[in-house]
Amino acid sequence: MDKISFEMIKEIAKPSPTRIVLLVIDGLGGLPNPETGKTELETASTPNLDRLATKGICGLTNPVSSGITPGSGPGHLALFGYDPVSCNNGRGVLEAMGIGFDLRQDDVAARGNFCTLDEAGMVADRRAGRISTDKSSQLCRLLGGQVVEGIKIFVCPVREHRFVVVFRGDELSAEVSDSDPQQVGVEPKVITALRPEAGRMADIANEFISQAGKTLAEHYPANMILLRGFSKHPQLPSIGEIYKLKPAAIAAYPMYRGIARLAGMEVLETGTTIEDEFETLKKNYSDFDFFFLHIKATDAAGEDGDFDRKVRVIEKIDGVLPGLINMEPDVIVVTGDHSTPALLRGHSWHPVPTLFYSEWCRPDKVTEFSESACLAGGLGLLPASQIMLLAMANALKLTKFGA
Amino acid sequence: MDKISFEMIKEIAKPSPTRIVLLVIDGLGGLPNPETGKTELETASTPNLDRLATKGICGLTNPVSSGITPGSGPGHLALFGYDPVSCNNGRGVLEAMGIGFDLRQDDVAARGNFCTLDEAGMVADRRAGRISTDKSSQLCRLLGGQVVEGIKIFVCPVREHRFVVVFRGDELSAEVSDSDPQQVGVEPKVITALRPEAGRMADIANEFISQAGKTLAEHYPANMILLRGFSKHPQLPSIGEIYKLKPAAIAAYPMYRGIARLAGMEVLETGTTIEDEFETLKKNYSDFDFFFLHIKATDAAGEDGDFDRKVRVIEKIDGVLPGLINMEPDVIVVTGDHSTPALLRGHSWHPVPTLFYSEWCRPDKVTEFSESACLAGGLGLLPASQIMLLAMANALKLTKFGA
Repeated sequence: MDKISFEMIKEIAKPSPTRIVLLVIDGLGGLPNPETGKTELETASTPNLDRLATKGICGLTNPVSSGITPGSGPGHLALFGYDPVSCNNGRGVLEAMGIGFDLRQDDVAARGNFCTLDEAGMVADRRAGRISTDKSSQLCRLLGGQVVEGIKIFVCPVREHRFVVVFRGDELSAEVSDSDPQQVGVEPKVITALRPEAGRMADIANEFISQAGKTLAEHYPANMILLRGFSKHPQLPSIGEIYKLKPAAIAAYPMYRGIARLAGMEVLETGTTIEDEFETLKKNYSDFDFFFLHIKATDAAGEDGDFDRKVRVIEKIDGVLPGLINMEPDVIVVTGDHSTPALLRGHSWHPVPTLFYSEWCRPDKVTEFSESACLAGGLGLLPASQIMLLAMANALKLTKFGA
Repeated sequence: MDKISFEMIKEIAKPSPTRIVLLVIDGLGGLPNPETGKTELETASTPNLDRLATKGICGLTNPVSSGITPGSGPGHLALFGYDPVSCNNGRGVLEAMGIGFDLRQDDVAARGNFCTLDEAGMVADRRAGRISTDKSSQLCRLLGGQVVEGIKIFVCPVREHRFVVVFRGDELSAEVSDSDPQQVGVEPKVITALRPEAGRMADIANEFISQAGKTLAEHYPANMILLRGFSKHPQLPSIGEIYKLKPAAIAAYPMYRGIARLAGMEVLETGTTIEDEFETLKKNYSDFDFFFLHIKATDAAGEDGDFDRKVRVIEKIDGVLPGLINMEPDVIVVTGDHSTPALLRGHSWHPVPTLFYSEWCRPDKVTEFSESACLAGGLGLLPASQIMLLAMANALKLTKFGA
């Protein structure tokens, strides 16, 4: 958040009856189809988004930094006004959030790999030949549910050889080293305490790994595990506390509900379709003054490399927009947490088209919501972590800084 | 490098078979000729650069910060992804690296000039009439090889009146002032310690200068030396280590070879012309995945205030570009380490036209490589230290940050 501290924002934020809707179209940005020269967003027919762009102010946002492809965690932390690097604390927590694990305050999470040890006990393959997610799920069931020294251990599959371990119990510290040596031909490392108070966590983790080795002995190539990135719930200051907002989250997917919870939002029950999500917004509209509405289907289409489907999802979102506009929020922000070009079949580093629509936004000359049109927009190229402040300003929820 | 640490980059960088070519046209940016309203780059006919600009994405880069005119050291450190302020430690080291001197960790290097003192002991010419490199080499032999107070002193010619002095011994500090007064008509300065522990270095340097004065007494116009930029090896983490690249440098001038060596690049033997440099690239193309190719002649023309010659050099570079394009690197970056407008006869603070050309660059609407066209480019106004990350991203050599 550059030089602007949360302390400073708390001083200038004031409650007001105005309402902000932050519409996050996951993976919104794209790359041009080589045949047409147009991105997904440029291909889609989006009369309502274009109308908002015409009346509003547009730009492009960088979720983390030039060239950095964000995962959903950092991408959303930035949208919620947090520094996506310093708040991105630990692989374990992000993986746990990523699978929608309901992480509690004292839980310690670690990222795990199934791996292959050779007969001498050296790591021969850090990914156990990338065993299937099915196989990994079976093995996770074998390892999970134990209690070591009063600590409950959850083992949840992520994808292929990857899983998450969560240690639940009192007074656990996450300040321990990794067992993953990050190379082959050496033994897994013994986990050690990085601070005196973490001795117990190290002992429990080593004991868990030792038992896992016995359990997995007959499951070559997945005959051992490697753990890394021990971390705890980051205890971020909440959106309510920083901005004096009453925030609600509408998201069909577990991970986004998880991140919204990290930011202190109330997570509303909703259905799985875009229409369900907008219906949830309508139903709860009078109870909150900030809504984070997350749409996943754009990102999913991009990850599948399905350009046309991403276009159709964008058109579908455009189709339901009048419902949102008619609620007359004081500020509508439309953006994404990162780009997911169908051509790359995954997240990318490209800046994200972003628009602000409010009575006070100082409109630019952009008349179309697209990557190339936003390039000429009044917001310029903006760090995504500044979106919250701009939304607050446009909602007239920030007083003057300094006399 | 903003919030992005090298540790973070190491975690997300992955080796891949893709190739990056960073073409640095020294002093590329200019100022408009008052008669035509066009800069050097805008005046030059550059069909190949324009073609790259059309297919690629353009912008302007700030080497250090708005308003800061960088020397070649900071300019290149930024291009290589280092923070140009915190990593910029001294002309002496840069010159020593530039001539391939094998600088050790504790060595202190200073940049030297042969100069002319008048009969009153005042500096009459800071460059001793730019004596020939041959003459300078002879004089360096007279001065070098001494041992002062157990400190071995190396004196190595660079070019014309320029040389490097390296002081080798234990516990030397480089925190001393310059003897070069940077003006004529005054005496050379006495070197003083800038920190208490640097007293010994100051004494040794003053003693060395005093002896040099005696040795050179009969060698008018080179009858004295001026030293500046005392510095030690900065121990930068290497490009290979940070980005998992196998980097090579092609540069005709010693200084740029030196900076490349600081960054851990392998410095390739090459000739002195632009054609030689491109030929070296071609010959070594399969052995590396990152090439820094440096062209000096633009800067030299700018420093000489020769607008037309700078235009011709740019046209010459444009002429050899097809050779580079035909090698089909995955990413081509064309930029400069700073601007050197012929009108200013020196380096300047003006942002530098920059283009990225890759399959994944998300092209903008810029169709011409020039200062004014780049202003509307998709890269916006970018710190030069982010070029490496963007190049890595475009080469698909960075994995996702965070889950």
